[in-house]
Amino acid sequence: LDKEYMKLALQLAKSVKGQTTPNPPVGAVVVKDGAIIGFGAHLKSGEEHAEVIALQMAGEKAHDATIFVTLEPCSHDGKTAPCADLIIKKGIKRVVIACTDYHEKVAGSGIMKLTKAGIDVEVGLLHKEALQLYDVFFHYIKNKLPYVTVKSAVSLDGKIATAKGDSKWITNKTARTDVHHYRHCHDAILVGINTVLNDNPRLTTRIQNGKNPVRIILDTHLRTPLHANVVTDKQAETWIFVGERVSAERKEPFKNNQFVRIFTVESEKIDIKNVLRIVALEGITSVFVEGGATVNDAFLQKNLMNQFIMYIAPIIIGGKNAKTSFAGEGFQKLTEALEFQIKQVEKMDDNLKIVAVRKG
Amino acid sequence: LDKEYMKLALQLAKSVKGQTTPNPPVGAVVVKDGAIIGFGAHLKSGEEHAEVIALQMAGEKAHDATIFVTLEPCSHDGKTAPCADLIIKKGIKRVVIACTDYHEKVAGSGIMKLTKAGIDVEVGLLHKEALQLYDVFFHYIKNKLPYVTVKSAVSLDGKIATAKGDSKWITNKTARTDVHHYRHCHDAILVGINTVLNDNPRLTTRIQNGKNPVRIILDTHLRTPLHANVVTDKQAETWIFVGERVSAERKEPFKNNQFVRIFTVESEKIDIKNVLRIVALEGITSVFVEGGATVNDAFLQKNLMNQFIMYIAPIIIGGKNAKTSFAGEGFQKLTEALEFQIKQVEKMDDNLKIVAVRKG
Amino acid sequence: LDKEYMKLALQLAKSVKGQTTPNPPVGAVVVKDGAIIGFGAHLKSGEEHAEVIALQMAGEKAHDATIFVTLEPCSHDGKTAPCADLIIKKGIKRVVIACTDYHEKVAGSGIMKLTKAGIDVEVGLLHKEALQLYDVFFHYIKNKLPYVTVKSAVSLDGKIATAKGDSKWITNKTARTDVHHYRHCHDAILVGINTVLNDNPRLTTRIQNGKNPVRIILDTHLRTPLHANVVTDKQAETWIFVGERVSAERKEPFKNNQFVRIFTVESEKIDIKNVLRIVALEGITSVFVEGGATVNDAFLQKNLMNQFIMYIAPIIIGGKNAKTSFAGEGFQKLTEALEFQIKQVEKMDDNLKIVAVRKG
Amino acid sequence: LDKEYMKLALQLAKSVKGQTTPNPPVGAVVVKDGAIIGFGAHLKSGEEHAEVIALQMAGEKAHDATIFVTLEPCSHDGKTAPCADLIIKKGIKRVVIACTDYHEKVAGSGIMKLTKAGIDVEVGLLHKEALQLYDVFFHYIKNKLPYVTVKSAVSLDGKIATAKGDSKWITNKTARTDVHHYRHCHDAILVGINTVLNDNPRLTTRIQNGKNPVRIILDTHLRTPLHANVVTDKQAETWIFVGERVSAERKEPFKNNQFVRIFTVESEKIDIKNVLRIVALEGITSVFVEGGATVNDAFLQKNLMNQFIMYIAPIIIGGKNAKTSFAGEGFQKLTEALEFQIKQVEKMDDNLKIVAVRKG
Ligand SMILES: [Zn+2]
Ligand SMILES: [Zn+2]
Ligand SMILES: [Zn+2]
Ligand SMILES: [Zn+2]
Repeated sequence: LDKEYMKLALQLAKSVKGQTTPNPPVGAVVVKDGAIIGFGAHLKSGEEHAEVIALQMAGEKAHDATIFVTLEPCSHDGKTAPCADLIIKKGIKRVVIACTDYHEKVAGSGIMKLTKAGIDVEVGLLHKEALQLYDVFFHYIKNKLPYVTVKSAVSLDGKIATAKGDSKWITNKTARTDVHHYRHCHDAILVGINTVLNDNPRLTTRIQNGKNPVRIILDTHLRTPLHANVVTDKQAETWIFVGERVSAERKEPFKNNQFVRIFTVESEKIDIKNVLRIVALEGITSVFVEGGATVNDAFLQKNLMNQFIMYIAPIIIGGKNAKTSFAGEGFQKLTEALEFQIKQVEKMDDNLKIVAVRKG
Repeated sequence: LDKEYMKLALQLAKSVKGQTTPNPPVGAVVVKDGAIIGFGAHLKSGEEHAEVIALQMAGEKAHDATIFVTLEPCSHDGKTAPCADLIIKKGIKRVVIACTDYHEKVAGSGIMKLTKAGIDVEVGLLHKEALQLYDVFFHYIKNKLPYVTVKSAVSLDGKIATAKGDSKWITNKTARTDVHHYRHCHDAILVGINTVLNDNPRLTTRIQNGKNPVRIILDTHLRTPLHANVVTDKQAETWIFVGERVSAERKEPFKNNQFVRIFTVESEKIDIKNVLRIVALEGITSVFVEGGATVNDAFLQKNLMNQFIMYIAPIIIGGKNAKTSFAGEGFQKLTEALEFQIKQVEKMDDNLKIVAVRKG
Repeated sequence: LDKEYMKLALQLAKSVKGQTTPNPPVGAVVVKDGAIIGFGAHLKSGEEHAEVIALQMAGEKAHDATIFVTLEPCSHDGKTAPCADLIIKKGIKRVVIACTDYHEKVAGSGIMKLTKAGIDVEVGLLHKEALQLYDVFFHYIKNKLPYVTVKSAVSLDGKIATAKGDSKWITNKTARTDVHHYRHCHDAILVGINTVLNDNPRLTTRIQNGKNPVRIILDTHLRTPLHANVVTDKQAETWIFVGERVSAERKEPFKNNQFVRIFTVESEKIDIKNVLRIVALEGITSVFVEGGATVNDAFLQKNLMNQFIMYIAPIIIGGKNAKTSFAGEGFQKLTEALEFQIKQVEKMDDNLKIVAVRKG
Repeated sequence: LDKEYMKLALQLAKSVKGQTTPNPPVGAVVVKDGAIIGFGAHLKSGEEHAEVIALQMAGEKAHDATIFVTLEPCSHDGKTAPCADLIIKKGIKRVVIACTDYHEKVAGSGIMKLTKAGIDVEVGLLHKEALQLYDVFFHYIKNKLPYVTVKSAVSLDGKIATAKGDSKWITNKTARTDVHHYRHCHDAILVGINTVLNDNPRLTTRIQNGKNPVRIILDTHLRTPLHANVVTDKQAETWIFVGERVSAERKEPFKNNQFVRIFTVESEKIDIKNVLRIVALEGITSVFVEGGATVNDAFLQKNLMNQFIMYIAPIIIGGKNAKTSFAGEGFQKLTEALEFQIKQVEKMDDNLKIVAVRKG
């Protein structure tokens, strides 16, 4: 039954994925005499860890119980007391862990502490499922960069608009709703200034109970209008990245808007890697790029794309000048092209969705 | 058991699809007292019809038997005596037909003849499967044009080559072998002169027991080299379509090559619909286009594409000047774009194959 | 996303199915601004309800939040304060319920209370999945009888043993392990005295973290040996049902065994419906019968079987006197035979498992 | 494409399975230059072999062609000239064979002859599928006994009737129609005299275009009534097996019935193996037993059952005296029970079908 209990812990962790940023989603289940006596998940950065909630629920009964936890319990002094200590104190007999932590402060030290205390520790149950859950978090911790997903809606011949620029709507409603699920579970959404100027989008999550991501605008010359939806709607924060040449006066009118932050990069043009580094420091672990061909290309050229999601409509647009997903120069040789792995193919009514992840 | 017998007839017809051009593939099965006493398929234009082979095999026993045939038996004087007459003469009691014929000379007259002779006729068993078998033939008969399948091998971002033109090989071996199956079952393959000049391809079917299609070259100024593989290899016929301005001297050296035919169109430039009309008259019912962006676009602009087959490799090439499947101007509005239906999606190792058919 | 949240609530409820007896398994999830802020499950009779745990976790944030709960919140004074009152007090804005309660004391009164308080109440999300979860509980509440599952391990020809009585082991190890999962999630296991005398079984759940059911023995003349495993092993309670003629002296030696209870029925022979009524009063909601042909037949004749689970081994034993799953007289006419519905068929290595539920 | 051609040959062979008795079903396809130029199947004992039909259809073109054949071509003088000789004479270049022949007269000698003639011979393409096709034939050739399939229609508890004998109808219409497909493809159907006396069955195949099997009656004392359907209906032959004590007078009235044959075994009682040996000599390769518990048991006890087909209805009949599939003594120890392998499980509306084949 161990598997069943770990599945539940993973299910709990999965259900809070996206709301614990910059912490990882963790689930825990406490079991004794064939019955669940406690369970928990880390709900939000700054709040209790999954193990704390689960052990509190178990109370006295935790003595001699088994705890199933999706990630190695913490052992360092952070915002909360280390979970490893609490597990020992509560008299837990056996700890089953799906994944060890990649965080340098933890990395096996939690397990060591537990083992030294004479607790039976098992690592690796449903490891593969857990790794999938932690793809974003581990990437973030290792690289100090958010996990980047680029999205594109194209015709069968790879066009995102006609030569004249008509792009509303290439894909069907099911595909467009699916996009909102991605917005919901990402920390931030990123677009270029042209998208703001042309479409005046809201960039919010329009599904019931949806969570809005931070809106990141790449805007070298700070051309974002003061009356743009992303500035005025107060639905989520908007972070505008501008070049060093933008004057203080130009930034002035945004200052008293609590929902807008201006980030000035230390160069004339905006370097996308720089932007990612900065937002990572701000605790953004995942970025959903809905940016158009030029913005997409910036990620391609810098090899900063972790995932590519493509919605294909069953039409052929044609046109050698009609835009495709990535503008710019592209790669010159096939051997230079970025390699992906097609992870998922799904029919969405008459459209098709393809999810590809960066290889290796 | 009727279904089982018709399935066998369809199986026989399907197995000869592509070799009976310009006739349709037909299968027939004769059954009496619960046993198969004869079966047949039309093997080649000019040879016996399926019904003739099946009834010959059945011999005397055909009296009072049932015949299952995939297409309405012919009733007109053609190269062979009408099958309807033979069925009557043999004393068949019941005729089960999957599909009526679209051919104006037949169109129900076979059924009428049989019914008048007092034979029990049933139409429509496994009709849907039969229609699929006759998609090419019915299109050809109704429109006097071959059924056109355009093939493209692309990256995830819809590119058929890098900006510098590197395209060998975007797709994997499984996908490339799959292409040869399409060559095998098409009457003709079509490319533009640039493909001949750049790649000097053979355009033959390189799978065991593969059948080579006729090779059609669009070559306005007759620039096909005399030493090109398609001219010298004698593996299949090569039909070169040239503009009216091409001089007789230029055509001269091809004249004594039995495998090459020069077709001169009555215009300066080559109109693709004109080409299709001509090859249809020559008995070509299906054309497989492996032509590159410009040739593909000719079919797109004239709305002459019946099927689009796309092999997608899991790489991103990028480049706004890197070619996509269709060059040319394309459509200006999304509402003008040609609509297709995604009929099949298949993983081919790490590649993906999408088959889309023209809607309506 | 509503569905996702209710799925989690159902998942939580499902994970505690079997440990909340005689209460139903209930799960709850509290959501606000696209994030989960609390979740809970009722873990054990006498402990907090799912809603209480979830709302405590949510704390202040519960104000204006949505709660997803698998079963209608209670509104009556029970062992705990009514959950409906707590939901109102916490300022919840919207309540989504999978299933209304069948319990006469609740039955819509919880919903009424919430609605009167101005809360938006929705009923029926994932209703079908919830009904499946509550099959046992609703049967128990409506009929004041436990849900009865009879299990049998047979050969292809329906034999549970050879004519000589050899039955160890007909089915394979996978099938036998599967049986332990059923023991784990049932409140009680039931056998006849002959099984105890012949096999001296332990009737415990021998899988990791398994929960032992109460062991019910039908033993008219109290022939259970004092040294039987079910009497001495102290792994779970053993309830022995005896006829009224059994003398007090005979019962005496069992009295100081805390794990054994003797139930004397008010008749010479033991009526199975009577037994079920008594154990229902004791809070047993589900009974797993592993009883042999005679005991099984008692359930068949009284039409008290809700589910039949059959493990089929790929052997033929033969023998007109070899026992089948049900001894006794059986039904005389086919129209009298009890009707079931085959709900599940599963290969278990070379064995086959069939789950059939009573129809109507 | 080799696989495609062999699949067609197997398809042809499969479609005549059951009508070629006692010869095996064989299919052949002749291919040249990527086109099918001939195909054939052996239709009936005494008629042309598959290779002959296929090569006749191919005519002159057969020179340098490839022939795909499901079974090794014959090389001995039988009713027809050896196919191996014809293949050589026709100038075939390559022979692809799915299965070598088990027949002692052939067994590799066909292949040897072909190889000696310089023909390229390949064996084993789609071998597994071919073996499945030849299960009946190879069993028949090796053992000089027909392949025996026993059929039973039972309740969930393995009963074929109530204790009172009510058995009409346990299973549903779909299951009963399925039985007729088995009758159609078997050479003979076998029942005991009691079935004839109680039900007066026709034992014919009541599906469209169905073929009637020979009807075998086990009737020790020749109690088959002269007015029984199997005697008077002239739908198929009826073979009655009687013991040696039956007088000539008793047999007399059956003599002038062309559809009835009386077989007298040389013993008082009828030995089932003896019956199978005799019908094998008469060319019966497969027997479908629909015999009731006693007849079924005869096959069980002599270990003469190759396949067991069970239709399960979702009812429980009960009754220790209600009959199961096999009467008689049965096996005493589980280790003696006959082992099978469950090959197929199929839902038939609310019924279930299980096909089990004898192991080893
Ligand atoms: Zn912690
Ligand atoms: Zn014809
Ligand atoms: Zn409550
Ligand atoms: Zn032969």
